[in-house]
Amino acid sequence: MATKISARSAAGTRDFLPEEMALRRSVRRVIEDTFELYGFQPLETPAMERLDVLTGKYGDDADRLIFKILKRGDELKAGLESGELSDLALRYDLTVPLARVIANNRDKLVFPFKRYQIQPVWRAERSQKGRYREFIQCDADVVGTTSVSADTEIIALTDDILTRLKIPSYQIQINHRLLLQALVDSSEIPPERFLDACIAIDKLDKIGWDGIREELIQRSFPLSSIRKLMDLLAITGEPMYIIRELQTRMKMSPEAEKALNDLQAMFTSLRAMAVPENHLRLSLSLARGLDYYTGPIFETIIEVPRLGSITGGGRYDRLIGIFSGEAIPATGTTIGIERIFDVIKALNISIDDQEPISSVMVVVFSEEVRPEATSITAELRRVGIRTEIYLDEAKKLGKQFSYSDRRGIHFVIIAGPDEISRGEVIVKNLKTGDQLVIKRDQLVRYLLNL
Amino acid sequence: MATKISARSAAGTRDFLPEEMALRRSVRRVIEDTFELYGFQPLETPAMERLDVLTGKYGDDADRLIFKILKRGDELKAGLESGELSDLALRYDLTVPLARVIANNRDKLVFPFKRYQIQPVWRAERSQKGRYREFIQCDADVVGTTSVSADTEIIALTDDILTRLKIPSYQIQINHRLLLQALVDSSEIPPERFLDACIAIDKLDKIGWDGIREELIQRSFPLSSIRKLMDLLAITGEPMYIIRELQTRMKMSPEAEKALNDLQAMFTSLRAMAVPENHLRLSLSLARGLDYYTGPIFETIIEVPRLGSITGGGRYDRLIGIFSGEAIPATGTTIGIERIFDVIKALNISIDDQEPISSVMVVVFSEEVRPEATSITAELRRVGIRTEIYLDEAKKLGKQFSYSDRRGIHFVIIAGPDEISRGEVIVKNLKTGDQLVIKRDQLVRYLLNL
Repeated sequence: MATKISARSAAGTRDFLPEEMALRRSVRRVIEDTFELYGFQPLETPAMERLDVLTGKYGDDADRLIFKILKRGDELKAGLESGELSDLALRYDLTVPLARVIANNRDKLVFPFKRYQIQPVWRAERSQKGRYREFIQCDADVVGTTSVSADTEIIALTDDILTRLKIPSYQIQINHRLLLQALVDSSEIPPERFLDACIAIDKLDKIGWDGIREELIQRSFPLSSIRKLMDLLAITGEPMYIIRELQTRMKMSPEAEKALNDLQAMFTSLRAMAVPENHLRLSLSLARGLDYYTGPIFETIIEVPRLGSITGGGRYDRLIGIFSGEAIPATGTTIGIERIFDVIKALNISIDDQEPISSVMVVVFSEEVRPEATSITAELRRVGIRTEIYLDEAKKLGKQFSYSDRRGIHFVIIAGPDEISRGEVIVKNLKTGDQLVIKRDQLVRYLLNL
Repeated sequence: MATKISARSAAGTRDFLPEEMALRRSVRRVIEDTFELYGFQPLETPAMERLDVLTGKYGDDADRLIFKILKRGDELKAGLESGELSDLALRYDLTVPLARVIANNRDKLVFPFKRYQIQPVWRAERSQKGRYREFIQCDADVVGTTSVSADTEIIALTDDILTRLKIPSYQIQINHRLLLQALVDSSEIPPERFLDACIAIDKLDKIGWDGIREELIQRSFPLSSIRKLMDLLAITGEPMYIIRELQTRMKMSPEAEKALNDLQAMFTSLRAMAVPENHLRLSLSLARGLDYYTGPIFETIIEVPRLGSITGGGRYDRLIGIFSGEAIPATGTTIGIERIFDVIKALNISIDDQEPISSVMVVVFSEEVRPEATSITAELRRVGIRTEIYLDEAKKLGKQFSYSDRRGIHFVIIAGPDEISRGEVIVKNLKTGDQLVIKRDQLVRYLLNL
């Protein structure tokens, strides 16, 4: 026999055993079915991309997190000379691969192209942070239209998915990149300090009003600008009220105009789609990746458990065209599926189709009657009943019952030589201990009626 | 605008656009559902494994095909000194990861453990051979029992999957590692020449009887042994007949005894499960990875299209225990899902749940009535009708019809200001050109009845 050898899994990776898999698959199917209900189409891309496709797209910090694949054979030898050891890498997200697919298939795809993609991504995070180095990302995007209807569609889709997953008390916060700019403009903050101001504003949920004022003072914004900005940010109420207030109180510019028109159209459509109003908030302090997003932005937060945002996205009109050298508008969201798995586990939410894997176990009274047990098994499977037969050598029935029990299978079927000669079977409920003798030819009907 | 930059995908990898994805997902769901009908449970493992977990398990040739991941940061610097540039690698198959999971979860899993796993694997094959470097593998295995019932279960499962996928005229060839040994023994070929003989025998399907005789002569086996061996291999007929003939004509040994008993039990059970007899063949010349398999072996071949085997497996009692240093019996099969995709495409087989992604398109008569169109869209989705709304700016209806048509959506719904004021909508069939005006509140019922 071989001696025991290392069986450790890679740091930051996970195995998903059957129980965990059942939950993950149910959630995934709900999300997929909802995507398709909205006409989003599935796309899959390879895990490996050419290194030059990935690098330089995410910024230097992110580039350091890309897992690179070592060259092989002669190319590795040459690489050791030149210092270029890698030619391929594992994808870091699903957006750059989408951009590549769009560039390569302009004539095959129908635009606006609505695609979803649910696949793992890899990031070389320090594993001591408790972060995973391999995790599922789940994206839906609409590529090829500047129309704000596409942004609305993404928000309605997000709401529908979270409702179907029974996530309690979430809120989709909505804002607009151009509105943030208009708010900062109206407060007489010069454009070059826009990012600086946004970094402070974005912290509202974390550090509160006083915290933001402190931070803006520390970043040496004039007090008059701080007061103006905070007065605008403080407008609360339902979205249409906020929009009207801003129309009167903000310095209007083409950007401000565009932002408020977009938001008005979005909230009008979301109402027409009957998205519950308490799921939505126009959040003037929401800022997300400002060098990335160009229009409406959105993010879903939940209060319990405190896991940060569970979805996030927006319009990003500059990235998708990067490979084709032309402007291709796009909007979309990431559904934070790994966080959603955690929420569902933490709150013990049951997803409807999470059925136990097997419903019935046919025990084998003795090896002599295995063919009979096998034939019952096949018969039940033919009508769609999830059925197992005891596979190990038929010994004590107690051992077989205990196997069924540990597998979570409550009904066992027994056919010993006596039952077989009388054309009968025993159905035993392991939970209650009840058992019932029935005619073999009544078995299917009996089980289907259970 | 950015200049055009490289958008090539990595050699030997593929993107799956929506049409292809629809087929792949349907096939995958049929396979998953069948696995679960038989009580197999899903497992997923990470793409990345520690390099030492993977190397030395597959032989030197295969080791060269493992994609290694470059070390990062300080470890890479140290690695450049020591020559150890890699610490992680992409999984090469699903069996070694299974062995690792078993070793790490002996107390959590219930044995016999029936697992299935459908995930990509990576192999650095030369891409000019037209082989893929990333492809889906689909495995079902029973771990923890030596009972031949488990082997039978795998064969029944294979047959059920291929039937549900409507694969025409396939044949599952079955043999036994110990029977091959007994056949060679009976022909007075010394044990050390067993592998040598099997390499020739295994080619029967390719080079025919004369070819095998030639090859055995070239490999300088005695003519008397060749005649004896070929006489035994030539026994044909239904499995029980072949088994009886071998019982009388072969030199019986404990191995021969065990092999024939196993095969007898398997074919008896397969009959009890009503697996059609013309799907099965006891094929005495079938040899598969002889240093790997230890008991029954099986392989499915199809005549058209000529793609080699579409499933393959057997009992391998020596690999799964490799990490825990103990003997853990196992049997299982690979369903060659990538080849099956190819067969289904080549033969134009339609899988039942391959429905078109979207069923209905709500066109937007003008931007003024978009809220109305949006509300119809939401209403149809609520009852489960896959519905899209035209997302781009509402211009000519003709452009919207053409978009629907290119997306394969035949029914469009139109609500202009006149229809809206009368509480009506138009349903237009783009294929026939027919259109019908109906009351808005009848729309759902009308579409559900289509």
